[in-house]
Amino acid sequence: MEGAKRRIGVIGAGICPPEIADIARHVGELIAGRGGILYCGGLGGVMEAAARGASEAGGLTVGILPGSKASDANSFITVPVVTGMGHARNVILVRSSEAIIALPGSHGTLSEIAIALKMWKPVVGIGAWGDLPGVHGAKDPEDAVEQAFSFVNRP
Amino acid sequence: MEGAKRRIGVIGAGICPPEIADIARHVGELIAGRGGILYCGGLGGVMEAAARGASEAGGLTVGILPGSKASDANSFITVPVVTGMGHARNVILVRSSEAIIALPGSHGTLSEIAIALKMWKPVVGIGAWGDLPGVHGAKDPEDAVEQAFSFVNRP
Amino acid sequence: MEGAKRRIGVIGAGICPPEIADIARHVGELIAGRGGILYCGGLGGVMEAAARGASEAGGLTVGILPGSKASDANSFITVPVVTGMGHARNVILVRSSEAIIALPGSHGTLSEIAIALKMWKPVVGIGAWGDLPGVHGAKDPEDAVEQAFSFVNRP
Amino acid sequence: MEGAKRRIGVIGAGICPPEIADIARHVGELIAGRGGILYCGGLGGVMEAAARGASEAGGLTVGILPGSKASDANSFITVPVVTGMGHARNVILVRSSEAIIALPGSHGTLSEIAIALKMWKPVVGIGAWGDLPGVHGAKDPEDAVEQAFSFVNRP
Repeated sequence: MEGAKRRIGVIGAGICPPEIADIARHVGELIAGRGGILYCGGLGGVMEAAARGASEAGGLTVGILPGSKASDANSFITVPVVTGMGHARNVILVRSSEAIIALPGSHGTLSEIAIALKMWKPVVGIGAWGDLPGVHGAKDPEDAVEQAFSFVNRP
Repeated sequence: MEGAKRRIGVIGAGICPPEIADIARHVGELIAGRGGILYCGGLGGVMEAAARGASEAGGLTVGILPGSKASDANSFITVPVVTGMGHARNVILVRSSEAIIALPGSHGTLSEIAIALKMWKPVVGIGAWGDLPGVHGAKDPEDAVEQAFSFVNRP
Repeated sequence: MEGAKRRIGVIGAGICPPEIADIARHVGELIAGRGGILYCGGLGGVMEAAARGASEAGGLTVGILPGSKASDANSFITVPVVTGMGHARNVILVRSSEAIIALPGSHGTLSEIAIALKMWKPVVGIGAWGDLPGVHGAKDPEDAVEQAFSFVNRP
Repeated sequence: MEGAKRRIGVIGAGICPPEIADIARHVGELIAGRGGILYCGGLGGVMEAAARGASEAGGLTVGILPGSKASDANSFITVPVVTGMGHARNVILVRSSEAIIALPGSHGTLSEIAIALKMWKPVVGIGAWGDLPGVHGAKDPEDAVEQAFSFVNRP
C-alpha cells in the first residue's frame, strides 16, 4: 500500500435536486483531480453525481452497494462492491475512506456521519451538516476537498 | 412467530454515570415486566444496566456484540450474539428490535437512532435525544416503555 | 456470563425429508434437555425441526436470520436475530455457537462447517459430513449431542 | 455499469509455497490481460501473488479485507475495501465477483467455494478443488482464466 492513493468517501442523499448534484459532481471532479479514489454508496443522487464528476475527470470510483446485484451501481462506478448487507454497508464505506465529505442527505447520511465520528475519521460537511458538532463546515466544493485532503495528508 | 414476545432495543453509552444507569435499569425492568425481550449491544454502561434490570425482573436479554468473543457480554445477557462485525452490529440490533429506547450516548448511539429512523422504526428518547426530529421524547422510564409498547402493539 | 448456558449451533438444509427432520428434532430436544441454548439459521427444514425439538423440551431457541424480517423465523424461535445480511449471517451463527452439530445439507451447510473449522470450533457431523476431515462423526442424535457438550465442557 | 469490466475473484491460502504463488501470479496477469478487475481478500499468499500479477500487467486490483485497517492490504492492491467483518468478508468477495478461480487453500477457501456454489456463481478450481462437485477443474492458469471468462461472457 506504499504510494497508495488517497481514499475519500462522499455521502449524501440517493435523490437530490440539480443544484446539489452540481456540487457533488464538482466534489468528485476535484477528488479525481488530486489523484484520490472516490468511495461512495454506488447508487443515485449525490452518489451518482460525485461518481460522474470523478469518472469524467479520469478518476477511479468505488461503489459500496447495499443490495445483492452489481447492476444496482450507477453508470460511473468503476469498482462495484456488492455487499448484500443493506445499511451495514455504510460502515464499510466509512471504514474504507480516510476522510468523508458529507452533502445534504437524510437519516442514512446522518448514520454515516455518526459512524465516521465514532471512528475518529475527519468529516467535512457542505450545507447543514457543517453545523453538527465534530463536523468541519466547508463553504464550497473546493474548500471541502481541500480540507479533506489536508486532514489525510497530515504527517 | 405467532404469540412472539415484543422485542425492544435499548441503546446508549457504554460508560455512564449512576443516575443514567438507574434509568436504564428501570427501563429494562419495565420491558421485562411487560413480557418483552430486551435487545441491546451487550457491553457495559447503559447496555449492562438495562440488561440487569430486565434480568432481575425475570426477563430475557439479548446482547448483539461487536467483537468476536461471547465473553465480552455483560453478566446479565442470556443470549449473546457474537457478530465480529464492529459497528455494523448496530444495524443488526436495530433491525432485530421492533422499537428503540434511546438513553444518553454519543456517536454510536446517534448512528443507531439514524439507522432506526431510516428503517421507519419507532424511537423513544430519554434525555437530549427527545429533541431530535423523528424521535419521540419521553419524560421517564415508565413513559418511555409505555410509548415503545404502544407503537409496536398498534393494530 | 458466569453460569452462562452452553450455546450449540445446529445447521443443515432448509428443506429436508421427514427422517432428517426427526433426527434434527431429537437433537434439539437433547440440547434443551441438557440446558443448552439452540442457535440456528431460523428458517425451515433442519432449522425448524431442531428449534421445534428444543422448544417442545422447554429450551431457548435463537434464529440468526439472513433476511430483513423477523417474521421469516419459524414458529419455534424464541429469539429472532434479524441480520439482513444474507449468507454472511452464517458467520454470525458459527461465531455465536460454542460447538456445531451438522445435519445433511448442501452448500450453505458446507460453508458453515468450513467457517467453523477455520475458527477452530468443534463440529460434529451426522450423516455424510462425518467423513469430512476435521468433522467428528456421530452415529445418532444422542452421540452427536454428547460429543458436542463434551467438547465445550472441557476444562 | 454498461461496458463494465469483468470482475474475477481469486481465492486461496494466505500463506503458500512459491510454486502456488507462481500460478496465482500468472492467473492475475491473465485476468488483467483480458481487461478484467481482480477481486481478492487483499492479504498475503495467493491473494498477494494474484494481485501482483494483475498489477504488474497494468490491471486493477481490489482487496476485500477482513480487518479494520487499510494497511493490512498487500502492496499490489489498488482499491482496499476495509470491511472490519472478519470471515463475513468472504461473502462480499464472492458476491462482488462474477466468477471465482480457486487455488489451493484451506477452510477459508472452502467456505468461499461453498458460498459461491450456493449463489450459483461459476467456480474454476486449480489443484485439488477441481475434484469438488460443482467446481470446474482447470489444468493451468490459461485454462482457468479462459474458463472463467467464458462463463461470464455467455450471452
